[in-house]
This record gives sequence, structure tokens and C-alpha cells, in this order.
Amino acid sequence: MVKEARRRVKIILSYDGTAYQGWQIQAGRPDLRTIQGTIEKGLTRLTGAPVRVIGASRTDAGVHARGQVAHFETESSIPTASFPAALNSVLPQDIRILAAEEVSSSFHAQYSALGKSYLYTIDRHQVPDVFRRHYALHVPYELNLAAMQRAADFFVGTHDFRSFCASGSSVKTFTRTVTHCQLVEQNSWLYLKISANGFLYNMVRIIIGTLLEVGRGKLAADAIPSIIAGRDRTLAGPTAPPHGLCLWQVEYHEGF
Amino acid sequence: MVKEARRRVKIILSYDGTAYQGWQIQAGRPDLRTIQGTIEKGLTRLTGAPVRVIGASRTDAGVHARGQVAHFETESSIPTASFPAALNSVLPQDIRILAAEEVSSSFHAQYSALGKSYLYTIDRHQVPDVFRRHYALHVPYELNLAAMQRAADFFVGTHDFRSFCASGSSVKTFTRTVTHCQLVEQNSWLYLKISANGFLYNMVRIIIGTLLEVGRGKLAADAIPSIIAGRDRTLAGPTAPPHGLCLWQVEYHEGF
Repeated sequence: MVKEARRRVKIILSYDGTAYQGWQIQAGRPDLRTIQGTIEKGLTRLTGAPVRVIGASRTDAGVHARGQVAHFETESSIPTASFPAALNSVLPQDIRILAAEEVSSSFHAQYSALGKSYLYTIDRHQVPDVFRRHYALHVPYELNLAAMQRAADFFVGTHDFRSFCASGSSVKTFTRTVTHCQLVEQNSWLYLKISANGFLYNMVRIIIGTLLEVGRGKLAADAIPSIIAGRDRTLAGPTAPPHGLCLWQVEYHEGF
Repeated sequence: MVKEARRRVKIILSYDGTAYQGWQIQAGRPDLRTIQGTIEKGLTRLTGAPVRVIGASRTDAGVHARGQVAHFETESSIPTASFPAALNSVLPQDIRILAAEEVSSSFHAQYSALGKSYLYTIDRHQVPDVFRRHYALHVPYELNLAAMQRAADFFVGTHDFRSFCASGSSVKTFTRTVTHCQLVEQNSWLYLKISANGFLYNMVRIIIGTLLEVGRGKLAADAIPSIIAGRDRTLAGPTAPPHGLCLWQVEYHEGF
């Protein structure tokens, strides 16, 4: 292969996470099918060289992405603008590269991210919609949506979100700033749109699990501030299933 | 099992046809996975008796349904209203029974149908939407939508649709009345909604294949009347792939 100067490429991609063990390659488990591993294999096949792909978000097994962002370095002669079509031709149909652009070597998909948005989808039909069964959590019981939105409002702002983080996480700080946390009702569909400067491990899924407890009347909306203040995972609700969750968008400084 | 008087039950169901060889059980091919066969197996498991299920439409392999209708007879003591939940508990997740009601023995899912509606979905994004890859045909090239709608209008009315019927079909008459044939554009999605008192084999898929030829400028919209008048399958466009097609609804006389 013709080699060019080493350059960094940013890609935007979407994937159906149903058939994957999450984004991240797991050390010593080459048998696990991961998004990262699948893309690295595709890039190696295209460029003839081993490639490391860094994602903005390490989505869990079964979680989807509409606008995941990742970067990699390459010396390949493939023009940057040709990477989406070239990669899509070697990737399985459930991963699609939407865009690619060259970025400076200071760009880092994870560390340069200013914020992320997730969408969680709930299917409230009595019988689940067969076409979205892998992309929505089926919740056929009554929900108090007004109470859920009141509870959701408490998450907005800068808080220590330790109560909404899977135990055992090792992070420097549990403080995150949630800029948007809104329920949107559309016929028998219910969406939670949530944006923050960053999310702790399982944070969105625990927030959803807690909001559903509020919706069912098992927890008062007004209990949220004390659950946040308690900084104890056992105070919050259960972790909602992964398949309703979708990484919607990752934001960067303009020009990145 | 407790036996009750024999009664006829009408069900409405939806299914993701991706994993099936169409609706219809094929004689001598018990190895083929069909919707009808899967439902009959589920009913037999529930009621302890062999059951024949008659569908309104024999959808092809890969074709989906949002509102297929079927009927069967049973002497089971399971209350009719309990059939959806009971059947859903034994059926795979890609088939869901939405409703069941007892009907008179003169009701026949296929012969009593007054009309059917289909939806064909086209994904016009440059890169296909990963979440609807099994439910939409990806058409990334330019389409002249005005010409396509002009062509679509010619299908409305009572015509001999032999040009839009897979060759080798044995039907009494090729005359059908199309009551609605409309393109709907929604961002990068294009839908064809088509209703008729009945459809010939592959009729919707051949109409779509022909409309796409018009959209690409390979065929003039004004050529449609002479293609219909020619009563010759070779005059029309190709048969569009099955996975964009969905049986939307089946209509009956009120009370049925």
C-alpha cells in the first residue's frame, strides 16, 4: 500500500448494538464481538495496517448509537472523504459510518468531547411494537408522566451523581453537569432526552430506572434531591435495560 | 383440555418478516420457517389441538405486517380475549398478536376482506439508517418525486393490472380497483401508501419498481397508462425488494 504522512481521522457512526458486547474491546477476550473490534478489523483490512480506534463513549452491550464519534490514525493513501464508503463496504450492515474528516492530532474523541446526548425510548403500547423491539423498553403499565417530568427536572444542573453510577466505577470525580433532561410523549412512545458534559457508568440507565419508579408511584418525584444528596447507589432505582438506550450525539468545539 | 363449542376467532397481528419465508406454509417443506406455520404451532401448543390459520394476505418472504388479519377455529376453553396474551407468550418476539375477537362462521380473513393497504418505505439517506435497514429500501440516488406522484396517480381506478402481476399467477381476473396511491415525503424518508380492493401477486412491489424507474428518469410518468393497457408484465419495471413492504391494514364490513 502507498503510505502517506500519518494523519488523524474523526468518524461519525451509527450502530445497532443488539448483536454486540458493547463498544469496547475487552482484554483477553478476542472472542467477544464488539463495535470497536469490528471497526478496527475493517480498517486493518482496508489499510493493511493495525489500527486503534478510540470512541467518545464506551456504550454497553445492547446499547445503540446514532451519532457515536471516534478517531484513529492512519498513513493510508485512502482519501479521508472516501473512508465512509470504503469502511461501509467491509463492515456488517448493523454498523454504518456516516462521515469522516481529518482532524488535528490534538483532537481526541473521548477527551475533547464537550458533551453528549442520549435518547432513551419507552414503548407504551399494550403489545410491543415488533419493529422497534430491539430499540425500546416495553412498559405497558400506567405511568404518571407529570411526576416523571417533575423528577427529571431535578437532574438538571451540576451535581455529584454517585447515586446514579454503577458501583465499583473508578473515576476522579462523580460531578457532572446535566444541561437537559426532558420527557417527550408521542402517541404511545415516551422518550427521555438527556444531555450532559459527561455521564458516569450506567448513569442514564439508572436515571431511567429511577424515573420509572416515580412513574409507577413507588417513589415520590420530590425524593430525587435527597437521593442525589445521599451519594449512595442503593438509594436510586434499578438500572433500566440497555436496549432502549441510544447515544444520540457528541459535541465538540467548533472546528473539531 | 376442557372443550367448548367450536368457534371462529379473528386475530390482528404484526410481524417482522425478516426471519421468515413468508406467510404461507409450503406443501412438502416443513423445514421452511413461515408466519402461518409458527402461529399454528403456537396455537396447537396452547389448545392441544391441530389448528389451521387462514391469513388475509399471503405476504412474501421478507415482507412485514403491521395489521395482518387471520382467522382460525377452536374448541379451546381459553377465552377469546385471552388469546393475544396467551399466544404472545409462546410466539417468538418478531410476531405479536394485537387483538382477538370471536366472529361468525361466515367470516373469512381472505374472502371477506373488502380492501387492503400497504406501505412501502424508501430510505433516501446517503448512508442507510441502521435501525430500519430491514424495513426500508435504500435508494440514495436522486429521484424526481413530482414525476413519481404523477405516475402514481395513474394507478388509481379500476384497471386490468396484468402488467403489474408476477407472471405465472393463476387468478380469475386481473382487474383490481386501486383507491389510493400516494407518495409521502418525510425528511429523507419516502413512503408509498397504496390501497385497493385486492392486490395481484407482487403487484405493490412491481408498482414500486416502476415508480422508481420514473423517479430516475428512465421511464416517463405518462407511459404508465400504456403500460397498464399493454397487459404484459415485461412492460413494467422490475419487482422492488420485499423488505421495504409492509401490509398495513385489512378492511372488512363493520361488525366483522
